[in-house]
Amino acid sequence: MSQHDAVEVITAKRDGHQLSDSQIDWVIDAYTRGDVAHEQMSALAMAILLNGMDRREIARWTAAMIASGERMDFSTLSRPTADKHSTGGVGDKITLPLAPLVAACGVAVPQLSGRGLGHTGGTLDKLESIPGWRATLSNKEMFDQLEELGAVICAAGDGLAPADKKLYALRDVTGTVEAIPLIASSIMSKKIAEGTGSLVLDVKVGTGAFMKDLDRARELATTMVGLGKDAGVNTVALLTDMSTPLGLTAGNAIEVAESVEVLAGGGPADVVELTVALAREMLAGAGVTDVDPADKLADGSAMDVWRRMVRAQDGDPDATLPVAKESHVVTAPTTGTLTRLDAMAVGMAAWRLGAGRAKQGEAVQAGAGVVWHARPGDEVTAGAPLFTLLTDTPERFDRALASLEGGWEIGAAADFAATPLIHDRIS
Amino acid sequence: MSQHDAVEVITAKRDGHQLSDSQIDWVIDAYTRGDVAHEQMSALAMAILLNGMDRREIARWTAAMIASGERMDFSTLSRPTADKHSTGGVGDKITLPLAPLVAACGVAVPQLSGRGLGHTGGTLDKLESIPGWRATLSNKEMFDQLEELGAVICAAGDGLAPADKKLYALRDVTGTVEAIPLIASSIMSKKIAEGTGSLVLDVKVGTGAFMKDLDRARELATTMVGLGKDAGVNTVALLTDMSTPLGLTAGNAIEVAESVEVLAGGGPADVVELTVALAREMLAGAGVTDVDPADKLADGSAMDVWRRMVRAQDGDPDATLPVAKESHVVTAPTTGTLTRLDAMAVGMAAWRLGAGRAKQGEAVQAGAGVVWHARPGDEVTAGAPLFTLLTDTPERFDRALASLEGGWEIGAAADFAATPLIHDRIS
Repeated sequence: MSQHDAVEVITAKRDGHQLSDSQIDWVIDAYTRGDVAHEQMSALAMAILLNGMDRREIARWTAAMIASGERMDFSTLSRPTADKHSTGGVGDKITLPLAPLVAACGVAVPQLSGRGLGHTGGTLDKLESIPGWRATLSNKEMFDQLEELGAVICAAGDGLAPADKKLYALRDVTGTVEAIPLIASSIMSKKIAEGTGSLVLDVKVGTGAFMKDLDRARELATTMVGLGKDAGVNTVALLTDMSTPLGLTAGNAIEVAESVEVLAGGGPADVVELTVALAREMLAGAGVTDVDPADKLADGSAMDVWRRMVRAQDGDPDATLPVAKESHVVTAPTTGTLTRLDAMAVGMAAWRLGAGRAKQGEAVQAGAGVVWHARPGDEVTAGAPLFTLLTDTPERFDRALASLEGGWEIGAAADFAATPLIHDRIS
Repeated sequence: MSQHDAVEVITAKRDGHQLSDSQIDWVIDAYTRGDVAHEQMSALAMAILLNGMDRREIARWTAAMIASGERMDFSTLSRPTADKHSTGGVGDKITLPLAPLVAACGVAVPQLSGRGLGHTGGTLDKLESIPGWRATLSNKEMFDQLEELGAVICAAGDGLAPADKKLYALRDVTGTVEAIPLIASSIMSKKIAEGTGSLVLDVKVGTGAFMKDLDRARELATTMVGLGKDAGVNTVALLTDMSTPLGLTAGNAIEVAESVEVLAGGGPADVVELTVALAREMLAGAGVTDVDPADKLADGSAMDVWRRMVRAQDGDPDATLPVAKESHVVTAPTTGTLTRLDAMAVGMAAWRLGAGRAKQGEAVQAGAGVVWHARPGDEVTAGAPLFTLLTDTPERFDRALASLEGGWEIGAAADFAATPLIHDRIS
């Protein structure tokens, strides 16, 4: 593997050439081992961001990152597997009702998740607000839980795609996050290494999402679907709206509570709609077409799986969830229609209230977050609560309120134009 | 100065924006102090390489690098100062006869030099082949020698533009050397900090040079001349040929010997021509127009300064120069005209024989190098010596011979087209 050197690989991409398979294999392996230095990889990442990679290069880069670590194999399970990945949004608690719902329909869901950073929440942070719940499982525990219950949501181990882990931390501090080839290979290397048989990607578009416009989101989705297919994973993507936050809550415990409402057959219409749509895609990807997931929400079987999942990871599904020590209510200044509610404004407010973290490793507040009492299109009445802000540390209210400022509008019903929840499907 | 952060500056340049004065000042200062990490600066350097910087940005970047360290001031000297910088070529020993020649004409030459890396030689490496000669002087020694003799060639202290020193080492390993804004600001920050009143740039063009084509060389020269003028240094550039090596020698001691021949009124015609042309530019830049440097070579006064310079730095101008332990002669296979002699081939051969180093800090062989017995346009006779290869370590001959292979041609006189030594002048 010593037939290359870092400067040769960097200058090739810098000068607009395609990297060879052998150059890609070498540079990922050498970076993982520490033989390519951080400053060399960051120069390469910037060259990739500015000069791009073609489909073959991205596929090879992804394969090399997978090869940097262990690979899981669920092919001996008694049922097919399907997984979902969201590129991250505000109020995006969909994984919580979705995993038990799909399991209730007969498909196993190995959902290896992460913690949140910045204004989008992390699935593990939300679940950790359930008293006793444990994110870290051994591979054997994960496998046994999948076989027995059909669903597991737990922390991804360090063994999966370590090159990606190292590269992601580097990109974060070097202005090289926003490269579609690097985003796509980062997500797909972990999902392919995780060993799922099929995969549904929820690519968020809008102010609260990483991708602000539909064209970039479509490019990312198309790239990832291609990578999945190239690796033999049945992959589809939905492009879904993230100009407005999902549901009525953004935080940790409050999103768990909303998810439980959905599992109980209630909950906000958009959360239910997206959960069912993603469940249908996951079932179809796994070859199960004779079950309607909406029925499994209605008949309580998804809730049964949820309760068993929580218990299997030492959580108490009947425990009272943590409540923030302090709350602050924002009332509607006028009567009218809520015409706009900006996902980024809500996400930043929740983050500043303590629901998210600014740096890896920081603790989050289980009870913190934002509840909004109306969704765009709803009527609001002057003086009635519009937002409830929740935190254990009331000195945070001011900055959270500043985040919300300008993030919503009340107008005439005629001023409201509904945005579709699902923009497009790419397969 | 904490109003910026590294990711903000990197992404601004990545996205094609101009950096503000304040962003540039901050990033250079923070990098010098270690608050901006190597991996952040290398990503920025790659973004600069691919997206460019305009004249204001380059001038500010250069000023910030100068401000990172000390600045010398020769304005109290009794004579004007002029300096010369070459972008590096094969057989380029011009500084050695040039500095004493210009001093003999009444202009002081503060020549702060470096050591060689790769296939181009370093002025200090050449001078260090003189027994006893010492490259490192205190600022006071340098100043006194300039006042007394009018010329000093010594090592640049660590205090000049430390940001450049750090950045240059980084660029070398991250594929970001070839950015004209970074090359220009690197050279000019040191030359401006050095405090010369006027400056002549010898920008090399051709196979053995950093700039392979005239357009890129002209762009670099124009950028540097602009930076010099903006900083109040009277600056001109000559674009000179480096498709063929200069003179008849490439090495250390053998280039000193050739330089002494020039100072004695002899030497290869091209070395004399370029030395005199650069001397005229330096004198004109310093406002001295009534002296012809050719006269000062002819009358021995340049040689007098040379001998005093060598002695002032503990060298013995009469000492026998080191001779390589082993030699290998390549003879001409046919009779005809030498139609081509490639500078890069000769430079690589000399480097492989031990005249240069592969890594900073390595020792070089004083006696190693290549002598060529004909220049392009000269007649050669079958069986007569064409090259003499010199080294202390004969196992190096094979690779040096391989470097020379294909680097020269013997043909008919009609096949030879002379290349001008000086392509252009930019002021």
